[in-house]
Amino acid sequence: MVFNTLGKALLIEAILLLFPMFVGVLYQENTFISYLLPILGLILVGAPLSFLRVKDKSIYAKEGFVIVAMAWIALSLVGALPFVISGQIPNYVDALFETVSGFTTTGASILSDVEALSKSILFWRSFTHWIGGMGVLVFVLAVLPADCSGAMHVFRAESPGPTVGKLVSKLSYTARILYTIYFVMTFLETVLLLFGGLSFYDALLHAFSTAGTGGFGLYNDSVAHYDSVYVEMVIATFMLLFGVNFNVYYLILIKQVGKAIKSEELFYYLSMVVVATLLIAFNILSQVASFGQALRYSFFQVTSISSTTGFYTADFDKWPTFSKAIILLLMVVGASAGSTGGGMKVTRIALLIKSSFKQLKRLVNPRSVVSISFEKEPVPTEVERNVRTYFVLWALVAVSCFLLLTLDPNVNDLMSNLSATLACIGNIGPGLNLLGPTCNFGIYTPFSKILLSFVMLVGRLEIFPMLILFVPRTWKRG
Amino acid sequence: MVFNTLGKALLIEAILLLFPMFVGVLYQENTFISYLLPILGLILVGAPLSFLRVKDKSIYAKEGFVIVAMAWIALSLVGALPFVISGQIPNYVDALFETVSGFTTTGASILSDVEALSKSILFWRSFTHWIGGMGVLVFVLAVLPADCSGAMHVFRAESPGPTVGKLVSKLSYTARILYTIYFVMTFLETVLLLFGGLSFYDALLHAFSTAGTGGFGLYNDSVAHYDSVYVEMVIATFMLLFGVNFNVYYLILIKQVGKAIKSEELFYYLSMVVVATLLIAFNILSQVASFGQALRYSFFQVTSISSTTGFYTADFDKWPTFSKAIILLLMVVGASAGSTGGGMKVTRIALLIKSSFKQLKRLVNPRSVVSISFEKEPVPTEVERNVRTYFVLWALVAVSCFLLLTLDPNVNDLMSNLSATLACIGNIGPGLNLLGPTCNFGIYTPFSKILLSFVMLVGRLEIFPMLILFVPRTWKRG
Repeated sequence: MVFNTLGKALLIEAILLLFPMFVGVLYQENTFISYLLPILGLILVGAPLSFLRVKDKSIYAKEGFVIVAMAWIALSLVGALPFVISGQIPNYVDALFETVSGFTTTGASILSDVEALSKSILFWRSFTHWIGGMGVLVFVLAVLPADCSGAMHVFRAESPGPTVGKLVSKLSYTARILYTIYFVMTFLETVLLLFGGLSFYDALLHAFSTAGTGGFGLYNDSVAHYDSVYVEMVIATFMLLFGVNFNVYYLILIKQVGKAIKSEELFYYLSMVVVATLLIAFNILSQVASFGQALRYSFFQVTSISSTTGFYTADFDKWPTFSKAIILLLMVVGASAGSTGGGMKVTRIALLIKSSFKQLKRLVNPRSVVSISFEKEPVPTEVERNVRTYFVLWALVAVSCFLLLTLDPNVNDLMSNLSATLACIGNIGPGLNLLGPTCNFGIYTPFSKILLSFVMLVGRLEIFPMLILFVPRTWKRG
Repeated sequence: MVFNTLGKALLIEAILLLFPMFVGVLYQENTFISYLLPILGLILVGAPLSFLRVKDKSIYAKEGFVIVAMAWIALSLVGALPFVISGQIPNYVDALFETVSGFTTTGASILSDVEALSKSILFWRSFTHWIGGMGVLVFVLAVLPADCSGAMHVFRAESPGPTVGKLVSKLSYTARILYTIYFVMTFLETVLLLFGGLSFYDALLHAFSTAGTGGFGLYNDSVAHYDSVYVEMVIATFMLLFGVNFNVYYLILIKQVGKAIKSEELFYYLSMVVVATLLIAFNILSQVASFGQALRYSFFQVTSISSTTGFYTADFDKWPTFSKAIILLLMVVGASAGSTGGGMKVTRIALLIKSSFKQLKRLVNPRSVVSISFEKEPVPTEVERNVRTYFVLWALVAVSCFLLLTLDPNVNDLMSNLSATLACIGNIGPGLNLLGPTCNFGIYTPFSKILLSFVMLVGRLEIFPMLILFVPRTWKRG
């Protein structure tokens, strides 16, 4: 069953690679072969796998994790090939970093000159964000007949957030609703960007990057290139929107607007964005011409970081210390659960804080039974426990990555390495200091690049699937 | 009962202040009045309080926390007076920071020139470490007849570590055993330092600072002043020893050496020190003359940081990034539970990791019942839960402190503020960059100094007692 699903995922990647190939033909590039070879390889390997006869169609939690982890690794390994074959990122490790950064919607780049890439390669680069944002396997589920029990485990392993609820009883239907919302919103953003004077190519690719909350841009100075308040506000608004739990949109779709607006997570997420925007705006006031200007930069950057997209219009590395500290915090917190954004997720942080205050209250009054609730429903102990475990494992991975990065001879700065770790595990993109928005990850050694690629995957798949590959018990039968 | 115990603690401080007063007379300083006034004030307030008639002698967990939190604040407020009255630290906020740093055994200083202080003031400064190391209230318990039920709660609130076991059934007897070990080890270190050619005054004060794992030195270049391998090794060894759980010494005393050596926490703690020493020694090799030299600096600094003392023989802020990252990590982890050291404690980290891996295993095999054990005994769920709560609350306090520090106009550097936060919450002392070993905390604004004083208390009393003062329920009856 693991290999069967893997095979299907590979075939889908082959189909997806047709799009940049088509773009290459359209712009008369000589990149045709760069896509054709991987496509043929994918079909050659994927087709036999997907036709494997499956005896036991059930997937348990363990298999769910394994499928997701292995599929993401395989897709990244192949997805890097077009960059290498076209010769535009000749080093395979660099290309892999870029691809993982794309699929995980991180947006961290090793390129110092983005504008040197050809149209079709830039298309593939932004397209990976869009593919990774919603998850490849959720797509598999959406197009397959839902006859396979336990597909829920795959869905759960790939979707962001501590609890995953099916919107409707049938899982494949849920996946289709999510994809429809995703398509429509991407389309809307593209149209609105066209009104801002962008070419269709620019508008579509920026919509891809925003939808996946990725952050790969088309220009060396990211969105600042357009120098247009309208474009910035459209992108900022959509970054904010893609950082919202998609359940909220579903509730609006089925006309339960009241319930949607009362969402506890939405309230926390929006409050966080508003407070951070105001704090930074006041803090950077002395560096800009007017309060309006400060709000413009601040709002764009806060939505970009908190949705974990990573676009920028200002070099926030030059902002005051307080603003940089807020940005570091937003990197850790991240977007809402059930959105395309990364980070620890607002829900998890809220649950952690609630659960800890519950314990503090119990110390004051041991006999009191205090239970915590979220979205007006009591939180099961199992979820509480998983959230805390997530937090500890997250910290362990972050600390290990940070320690190993400090061994890198090319980056001798603690804050650079720390921010790089946070930017990768939270799938944000740019860090601070030597890895600030105007810099790039190309300065790291190949070892560090592979390490950071792994950490991006750990962050995107929310710790458990990747770590579970290292638990010996996973590979035992039964 | 709360005020009664508080009164007794104040009276004990009055007695303790007699020592520096005596030192002042001995060295013919004009500091007599600086101690006499606080002593009279303490007696005036403390005596009536301690003679308050107590109706209900029982102390519950809540009262235990409140007593400890209030006593530490009161003792610090008064303990700062000699510095101010003598005019040697004229600013009260500075004096308070220095006193809190002393009692909490942090060792962070606002002084740029330690050597300018008079003998008796330096004595009081190091003496606060020695007092704070074991806890003032444990001392109250040790000298009082143990007729008060629930004194265990006070003991628990003031002692470091996730679980507190009585060594023997009677609590006051336990406290006396701990104090005896503390006295004897301090005495041994003093004698060994005398052999190193130090004056009795120097030897005693360094023993005080080591015993409390504080870190206040007598010279501007800390222990590097003596430039003696013997002195450094004696101090390093005792820093290591005071970072060990005192239960281990008790087991050795009652001739259960086998059980003492097999202590799981001791094993983790020593392994951590050995590994960190070797890693740093290899890492700084290029900066020093020989491997022996590297080991000498590395061993001293690792024992100093991991025991949370904070002495230094080398400016570790100039070490390579990897070594600095290890030092940051050691700051967070800290010493063993049940020692005089600070930080999160080795036991807590071990429990956190074990508990998280247990959850990870449960994901692989949901039916398996995996329980965790420590020191060969199963860990109660309640302890596991408290440890995780501690971790979350610790992170919340650290993040809030870090954010507020970045608002300080005098320290515009993220890593300085981050390391200052970790150095204070972990009761270590020196941080990195602008707050490295050769710098001092005097550059902060008064607001930040008060904030850091609070955070040092939060760290020393292990989060709960200080935070519980802010839970409204604490102040309600019943």
